[in-house]
Amino acid sequence: MKKIINDPAAVVTEALYGMAQAHPELRVQHTDPAYIVRADAPIPDRVAIVSGGGSGHEPLHGGFVGPGMLTAACPGPVFTSPTPDQVQAAVAAAHGGAGVLLLVKNYTGDVLNFETAAELIEAEGIDVRTVVIDDDVAVRDSLFTAGRRGVAGTLLVEKIVGAAAEAGADLDTCERLARKVVDSVRSMGLALAPCTVPHSGEPSFVLAEDEIEIGIGIHGEPGRERTRIAPAQDLVRTLLTPVLEDLPFTAGDRVLLFTNSMGGTPLIELYLAHGSAVALLNERGFLVERSLVGPYVTSLEMQGISLTLLRLDDELAELWDAPVSTPALRWGR
Amino acid sequence: MKKIINDPAAVVTEALYGMAQAHPELRVQHTDPAYIVRADAPIPDRVAIVSGGGSGHEPLHGGFVGPGMLTAACPGPVFTSPTPDQVQAAVAAAHGGAGVLLLVKNYTGDVLNFETAAELIEAEGIDVRTVVIDDDVAVRDSLFTAGRRGVAGTLLVEKIVGAAAEAGADLDTCERLARKVVDSVRSMGLALAPCTVPHSGEPSFVLAEDEIEIGIGIHGEPGRERTRIAPAQDLVRTLLTPVLEDLPFTAGDRVLLFTNSMGGTPLIELYLAHGSAVALLNERGFLVERSLVGPYVTSLEMQGISLTLLRLDDELAELWDAPVSTPALRWGR
Repeated sequence: MKKIINDPAAVVTEALYGMAQAHPELRVQHTDPAYIVRADAPIPDRVAIVSGGGSGHEPLHGGFVGPGMLTAACPGPVFTSPTPDQVQAAVAAAHGGAGVLLLVKNYTGDVLNFETAAELIEAEGIDVRTVVIDDDVAVRDSLFTAGRRGVAGTLLVEKIVGAAAEAGADLDTCERLARKVVDSVRSMGLALAPCTVPHSGEPSFVLAEDEIEIGIGIHGEPGRERTRIAPAQDLVRTLLTPVLEDLPFTAGDRVLLFTNSMGGTPLIELYLAHGSAVALLNERGFLVERSLVGPYVTSLEMQGISLTLLRLDDELAELWDAPVSTPALRWGR
Repeated sequence: MKKIINDPAAVVTEALYGMAQAHPELRVQHTDPAYIVRADAPIPDRVAIVSGGGSGHEPLHGGFVGPGMLTAACPGPVFTSPTPDQVQAAVAAAHGGAGVLLLVKNYTGDVLNFETAAELIEAEGIDVRTVVIDDDVAVRDSLFTAGRRGVAGTLLVEKIVGAAAEAGADLDTCERLARKVVDSVRSMGLALAPCTVPHSGEPSFVLAEDEIEIGIGIHGEPGRERTRIAPAQDLVRTLLTPVLEDLPFTAGDRVLLFTNSMGGTPLIELYLAHGSAVALLNERGFLVERSLVGPYVTSLEMQGISLTLLRLDDELAELWDAPVSTPALRWGR
């Protein structure tokens, strides 16, 4: 295993230390219980939006903490849920008196730990709600999940709900919006090459020279099938077809297309795939009104991409466009 | 070779098409002569800042086109200089009447083609200056270069000069600032794993299971030595020591530290390396006043990092902090 690390057991702590040095606009608690919170939190009378999950998916979630997106995030060990203690500590730092919305990717460990955390937080008299994200159309009931997995669509939930909270929306509204995005977003991914979790030291799976895995999860969980590498336009069709059929999206829909790298796939291939996906969507009568392209919801150095489609309306488009200022996502005024 | 592409010969064109779809705030000419220009260019009486080079280093340079940074960029084939025609076309789209500054990484092909372009542009009666960037302390007179190579420091030149041009600085000032940054910035990188250029289909070099290349260039050119993988803090010291000695930087200096991924190294390792570099610099009495961490000057999917150090003064810090709004770098109002 070749990685730029010191001790495999210290990777997350040391990476968080580096993140603290790079981003003085955040407060990063790099030792246990680790969390990342906006430096200006708690913000009185503003709903706190808190997420988290295993590390190794950077910039998700810590890179999305800041004005217009998450109030706080809790990074667990690599590919392992944060503890209820971490969530509680993050909420303590984030809560401004207007309640807390927990955004949780649908993995059994995460759901369980955030549930326990929610009970502890509620016992403190804080109004807390939980929305579970399960946008991956590839598989049901996979290795780490009952139901569908939460993957790259998580970013869209965090951005849109974060914008609403920033504008002063109350907890009911934030919860409603999170559920609306979850109901309107679908994703699917593929992998060309695996990643290696530092404490295991072994690749998460093995693919032959010309083999790819369709429907991969963000921890290297098996997908739908192994096939041979094909031209980009075929790969894009393979991903988009089940995404479109699932919701279903229908011709004429306004959509946001998010082309995501699993980590090790370079931007030149991402833009190429994005162009191919836009062309296919245009052909089928969809209106691609917003785009996002980049390595945002990753699996360490895994090579591959995922495509995420969100059905837009005026409300969601306006919240998507609202200013955001985080390490990884930043625009607006 | 597993890549998300169609035809190896069409990779750049198709990626530029995707970039055009993703970024309506840019005008992307994706067919020959390819260039990327701010949609609001030419801007009357504003100096045009134009750069370019081989593709495969994304987001460099096209991802840095926008208010506060480059006016235009010309992407050549992968790892191959753009033609003089491309540079001329980009300048024609970018020039607002106040002259043009060409920012060129020091590779023989780039220097030659930009020189030819400058002659053609000058013949049209446009005031054009060229500044060559050569921040890599690893080697002199390497595979593609006479003198030192231009690497990740290029981003800092583009950002700082772009901010000055945006604020209305004249061509003399922009040229002076570019030279000042070039004189104050030094970089060095290492690779853990190679990349594969699409039209070659073969990795650019081969490393053993536990081997790394110190002093690598951004095209996979050989560096100073091959050694065995070591703890991150040792790797960081190996990169920073020659960087510090070269300028030389001296204790008490205010610096900007830029920790860059060569493409395939994940953010968690980058932040870890950044933290380690900040700790080392603090120990030696430097003041790390600004940080940048991310995959900004890459070599396709190559795994590795580079560290870039810029000596700051008030003028450079202020221009660094100025608002920028490009696909890859964006902050401020």
